[in-house]
Amino acid sequence: MNQTAKDLPRIVIIGGGFAGINVAKAFKKSAVEIDLIDKRNYHLFQPLLYQVATGELDPANIAAPIRKILWKQKNVHVALGKVTAIDFEKKIVQFDGGAMDYDYLVIATGAQQSYFGHDDFRVHAPGLKSIDDALEIRRRLFLAFEEAEWEADEEARRKKLTFVIVGGGPTGVELAGAVKEVATETLPNEFRNIQSNSARVILVDGGQRLVGPMPEDLGKKAQEVLEKMGVEIHLQVHVNDVTAEGVVIGEETIPAENVFWAAGVQGQDLAKDLNVEIDRGSRIVVEPDMSLPGHPEVFVVGDAAHATDAKTGNPVPGVAQGAIQTGRFVAEIIKQEIEGRAPKERPAFSYYDKGSMAMIGRGNAIAAIGKVHYSGILGWISWNILHVMFLVGFRNRFKVMLDWLWNYIWKTRRSRLITGDPKVHIKRLYSERHNCEQHEKRRRLRRRHKDQEE
Amino acid sequence: MNQTAKDLPRIVIIGGGFAGINVAKAFKKSAVEIDLIDKRNYHLFQPLLYQVATGELDPANIAAPIRKILWKQKNVHVALGKVTAIDFEKKIVQFDGGAMDYDYLVIATGAQQSYFGHDDFRVHAPGLKSIDDALEIRRRLFLAFEEAEWEADEEARRKKLTFVIVGGGPTGVELAGAVKEVATETLPNEFRNIQSNSARVILVDGGQRLVGPMPEDLGKKAQEVLEKMGVEIHLQVHVNDVTAEGVVIGEETIPAENVFWAAGVQGQDLAKDLNVEIDRGSRIVVEPDMSLPGHPEVFVVGDAAHATDAKTGNPVPGVAQGAIQTGRFVAEIIKQEIEGRAPKERPAFSYYDKGSMAMIGRGNAIAAIGKVHYSGILGWISWNILHVMFLVGFRNRFKVMLDWLWNYIWKTRRSRLITGDPKVHIKRLYSERHNCEQHEKRRRLRRRHKDQEE
Repeated sequence: MNQTAKDLPRIVIIGGGFAGINVAKAFKKSAVEIDLIDKRNYHLFQPLLYQVATGELDPANIAAPIRKILWKQKNVHVALGKVTAIDFEKKIVQFDGGAMDYDYLVIATGAQQSYFGHDDFRVHAPGLKSIDDALEIRRRLFLAFEEAEWEADEEARRKKLTFVIVGGGPTGVELAGAVKEVATETLPNEFRNIQSNSARVILVDGGQRLVGPMPEDLGKKAQEVLEKMGVEIHLQVHVNDVTAEGVVIGEETIPAENVFWAAGVQGQDLAKDLNVEIDRGSRIVVEPDMSLPGHPEVFVVGDAAHATDAKTGNPVPGVAQGAIQTGRFVAEIIKQEIEGRAPKERPAFSYYDKGSMAMIGRGNAIAAIGKVHYSGILGWISWNILHVMFLVGFRNRFKVMLDWLWNYIWKTRRSRLITGDPKVHIKRLYSERHNCEQHEKRRRLRRRHKDQEE
Repeated sequence: MNQTAKDLPRIVIIGGGFAGINVAKAFKKSAVEIDLIDKRNYHLFQPLLYQVATGELDPANIAAPIRKILWKQKNVHVALGKVTAIDFEKKIVQFDGGAMDYDYLVIATGAQQSYFGHDDFRVHAPGLKSIDDALEIRRRLFLAFEEAEWEADEEARRKKLTFVIVGGGPTGVELAGAVKEVATETLPNEFRNIQSNSARVILVDGGQRLVGPMPEDLGKKAQEVLEKMGVEIHLQVHVNDVTAEGVVIGEETIPAENVFWAAGVQGQDLAKDLNVEIDRGSRIVVEPDMSLPGHPEVFVVGDAAHATDAKTGNPVPGVAQGAIQTGRFVAEIIKQEIEGRAPKERPAFSYYDKGSMAMIGRGNAIAAIGKVHYSGILGWISWNILHVMFLVGFRNRFKVMLDWLWNYIWKTRRSRLITGDPKVHIKRLYSERHNCEQHEKRRRLRRRHKDQEE
């Protein structure tokens, strides 16, 4: 037994996202020893992160413990830790909990938010790549209305109720739509001084149209729908600065206390330390077979890789499907080789586009499947079905459907807790501190709203 | 209309817990203007906090936005903010978002964790009074197993897998039972190196028996059940120190990396600044009618008050029922006076004990209702029913029942995300940093477990 255990081929997978999990699962029946390491203890269903950020879903609904997903697969050994170095010669992965040696290594570290060199924007404009990001956006989103309710100064109140979303890709579009819905559908009845639906939601993108990667007609459609919802859209403008005051577009400053960043992604910092060839977005450049140049036993998959579609020559898109497909492709190569049935030539990866979708708002989503483009309620239905289907764990699927149904019927959102560092929250309130004179203003305000109600 | 608005009696309620919410609700049909201020935007169902801390429930399941609870009650105006001062003469409440004037003031600020003057314990022993507390305990609980899995040093591993719960009241008992269940029922199949069910769970209390406030036979019963579950119980011992190394009891140190504090509560710090009479636990001493001595228009309710039962002379217990009952009692007094139907003498508050319960473990809870004491499955059923009944919001009730049912059947817990400050988490891992020699140890370990499996 020890003998066999020693002789089993050892595969180390870095990252438990779509790519990493799919690599591991492909070896369900294989005689291998797999170490899967991730810096989080859960697999995250990123496409639904924006719904956590806007109070629609609970974090646990879209995140499943990696151990739980793989516990039945006895050949997988999960580790929680951060990879600090890789020795490609000795074939050892160092992490802050120890080290692992490998015969095959799969790097599936995914992507992080990119501020295009302006990391100073981050503090004013949280991104949306992790649960903690989403909770931070949620905190700011709902806190903004709370503060506005007691803000007597008109201008300051407008600033609190202005939300700028930077980036018009699918994430930005979905986030903008959801934020607008929070203001117009979720909150209106709950405040006394402010009209929550008067909140400005501004979507900013440098491109000529929204959802660049998707077909042009759908980009137009998305814009049309969002504008009908009341979202202001600024295209072909570049964000020169983000401060506590707001966003600077060209020369113009949009006063806004809430800026959310959905503009771009890049590979993890780890890639920079490996002294391998990376592209401008710190993605690792790979061979057609997704292997690291000069290291056929090392593969890079998913968002971490700069890969090219063998058929079309286009870059493989950084989406869930890209991660899943590259993961399975690489797993198959490794399997063939350890089972001694590998072809002389390794195949080259080519991406199969199953289509793409983006939720825009209540009962409306855009979808492109092959030549077929559609939107509206039909798109919305397929968006919901697709996302629930791909969600890991029957339980989560069931609960998410339940939440969606409930929220749809009652136009509400349950998960609106303003949690996290209270110091931050208190600090923000203090910065708006008021004095007693304003109190009278406020009472007048209150009366005005009372009158309106009658 | 303005006239009326101005002339309406103004009631300010500080705190949106059981006490504050019940005061506000009592005025559903009254012509008053209510300001309810809380430092959180949600009402928290504290009795179930320990289930969030142990991954059984999601935070949003036990926390409902205060605005959402009261949105239909147009005479209530909710504010998110921290009260900084109260001017009892001018009758103005200052908070970090402004100021509010009142005709009647109800202080329902609740309780916070008490470290009995050893606030330095806090960093090593998080309490369990807020969602953020619960998430911190959850983070440490599940992180401990993750780290132990890759800890090659036997002694260090034991330390990581030792959990000390300080305080043998209902909260401590429920937490200890749940932590033990995480180790014995939730995690066993998911780890390869460690036997999660070998984790030590130690419950420490200074008293002669567990759940002091409850009848003696039930305390014995709780101890019996917990010990059968494998929880080690140390009674009549005092915690002299809590460090990164563990807990110091008398002269003895229990090496433990995870210490959770459920030992005591005290009033909020605000009470100290009001220059009113407070007891050793910073609870505000009140008149028999729950009013502040010398200020009949100011009331203190719930855990914030040091109140005495008019009938028995016993202190009113700091439990949900105490908060609800004092809240309704005070609301009634105010109502009578506003409506000009007040008796000459204000009544004195007396507490009606509806009984108390504590969950111990899977299918076992203790309950005391009047003279009737019972435990086991019957106690467990009534515990579940009672807690779901009192949960705010039909939706939450439904989801909590769903979660309980699911977790009970599958012996699992979904909400095990290790979120929050990754720096902290990384720091802890670094502090355990390993070198390569240990790697071999670890591989041997892995094999040993493999052999055991065969």
